[in-house]
Amino acid sequence: MSESDLLARIIPMFGESRYAGSGVVVPPGDDAAVLATSGSVVVTTDSMVRGRDWRDDWSSGHDVGLKVVAQNVSDVAAMGAVPTGLLVAVAADPETELDWVLDLTRGIADAAEDAGCPVVGGDLSSAPSGVVIVAVTAFGDLQGRAPVLRSGASPGDVVAVSGSLGWSGAGLSLYAGGVRDPISDRTRGRHLGAADAAASLLMWFHRSPRPPFESGPVAADAGATSMIDISDGLVRDGARIAAASGVELALDEEVLRSQFLAGPVDLAVGARAGWREVLSGGEEHSLLATFPPGGVPEDPHAPWTVIGEVVAPGPDGPRLTVGGAVPSVTGWDHFAG
Amino acid sequence: MSESDLLARIIPMFGESRYAGSGVVVPPGDDAAVLATSGSVVVTTDSMVRGRDWRDDWSSGHDVGLKVVAQNVSDVAAMGAVPTGLLVAVAADPETELDWVLDLTRGIADAAEDAGCPVVGGDLSSAPSGVVIVAVTAFGDLQGRAPVLRSGASPGDVVAVSGSLGWSGAGLSLYAGGVRDPISDRTRGRHLGAADAAASLLMWFHRSPRPPFESGPVAADAGATSMIDISDGLVRDGARIAAASGVELALDEEVLRSQFLAGPVDLAVGARAGWREVLSGGEEHSLLATFPPGGVPEDPHAPWTVIGEVVAPGPDGPRLTVGGAVPSVTGWDHFAG
Repeated sequence: MSESDLLARIIPMFGESRYAGSGVVVPPGDDAAVLATSGSVVVTTDSMVRGRDWRDDWSSGHDVGLKVVAQNVSDVAAMGAVPTGLLVAVAADPETELDWVLDLTRGIADAAEDAGCPVVGGDLSSAPSGVVIVAVTAFGDLQGRAPVLRSGASPGDVVAVSGSLGWSGAGLSLYAGGVRDPISDRTRGRHLGAADAAASLLMWFHRSPRPPFESGPVAADAGATSMIDISDGLVRDGARIAAASGVELALDEEVLRSQFLAGPVDLAVGARAGWREVLSGGEEHSLLATFPPGGVPEDPHAPWTVIGEVVAPGPDGPRLTVGGAVPSVTGWDHFAG
Repeated sequence: MSESDLLARIIPMFGESRYAGSGVVVPPGDDAAVLATSGSVVVTTDSMVRGRDWRDDWSSGHDVGLKVVAQNVSDVAAMGAVPTGLLVAVAADPETELDWVLDLTRGIADAAEDAGCPVVGGDLSSAPSGVVIVAVTAFGDLQGRAPVLRSGASPGDVVAVSGSLGWSGAGLSLYAGGVRDPISDRTRGRHLGAADAAASLLMWFHRSPRPPFESGPVAADAGATSMIDISDGLVRDGARIAAASGVELALDEEVLRSQFLAGPVDLAVGARAGWREVLSGGEEHSLLATFPPGGVPEDPHAPWTVIGEVVAPGPDGPRLTVGGAVPSVTGWDHFAG
């Protein structure tokens, strides 16, 4: 199948009708696309590599498409912006099964529609045997808001999370432990216990997280002083806010345990492993933000849970603490990992 | 070397000072970057894959960096926009030599500086053994111009080219034929004949083309009715304008031979092979545009050469002709190739 034949199958899946009413001034098909903006554009890129960022025996093409869009949309949201468009660059072994590529395309298109940001272009390259890499670039619009950086947290602010903690990491640990998703063709119809249901939920979330991206602009409108997408774990990403802002993020262990460990994570992997995932599990794509006292918004999309406070740095400088101590766990390193 | 160690080496090479005076509102280091815009943003992406789009025995990391930026900047220019920023996603075997990665980074930084569009972010992923893929996304600003599409050519318009034709393809054919660049460490100081000098020029151009990107906005300001970046060859890309505009592009064989075949291409590879490259050589990244009669601009950056005219389509519909006939050569298919 030639590049143009394949593109002729793929491009209609992104749906020309989706450009109606969007900010797409020039849709795919020319040298470049053109998006309407309100004075600035938010840009970010994130890639997934077969065998590193997903395994074909765990994730479908559709899962990969959902996830690579989620990762990018979440970064846009963490600036306080709404997603407005995507570019997709795929480098694939020409022997890759067409059905898989079409399934990936459907996943990208579904996630793009959910986030309201059409796919406005892309690139298709042939890659060595077995290789599939999907690189997505996302665009966002601040709609007049100031961008919410990592560097604006001040002592006295409260720390809050929109979305879950530890779900993706716990789901990954189940896969890594050889667990088969309890909800599968083989088990359909069978009654699931609470632990099985929790495990299935977390494994599903690991395959295809759905970030609370609507909460980004809500937080910005509420006056969030800093915000980050939790992609490398709460401890590692929270420490980035601490370092950029020159503060200490003092997190409340009891709140984290009762609000995030209790429930599916504890049920599925137990308290010891679950606590590690709440603190350091990657690829969660929840939002971590700081707000002035009393400024945590009522968010119609996903509740913000207050998990700590911002305090002046002690003698050890900017850092993140949980229950007063620096946690021993860290988080993900995509390149070493 | 960890991801963060490597990024600590790479990011300073993009030079924070380069953000001063540019439209970069939020530089790299947060969840996403923010670029200033004037009401819209032009976006495009293009990738290079080791072993497919370059060979390490022909191209240095610096060459690859220059070329992948050139490909993207050229697409921005073909809309009539000025480049304003780049994102770079690299997926690389962790065993890739650090020197090569730094050389690639330097090439990207040099090309970005030349084009006036800072690198505002990126992504680094580990890839399977031997794999290196560089995906670049470029942004551009139309500065109030209407985007120049492929679809606006009308009968009576003239067809013109800014930049060379056939250089990259002829350079590639020399490499493919086993020719070693006559200018190399071994031959430095030796007198080069005209054919050797021409060969070296074309091989250099193939490794690291420098598109006439400044000519894109000049063409737009002059009222260009259509424009395209020549990445898949004159015949194939010209046929895209013909198809999108519903016209025939009638190119003048004598002008093409005298203005583009004569000179380095003929000297280096001869008239027969050279003519094929003028018509169908890919990766040239010159600009092909149509202008109303008398509208071809005086371009201070690179001259526009009139190579034909736009005529109403005949019974065979939209097409491109050279000397009245449809050429038998076509052009590049990146996926099949």
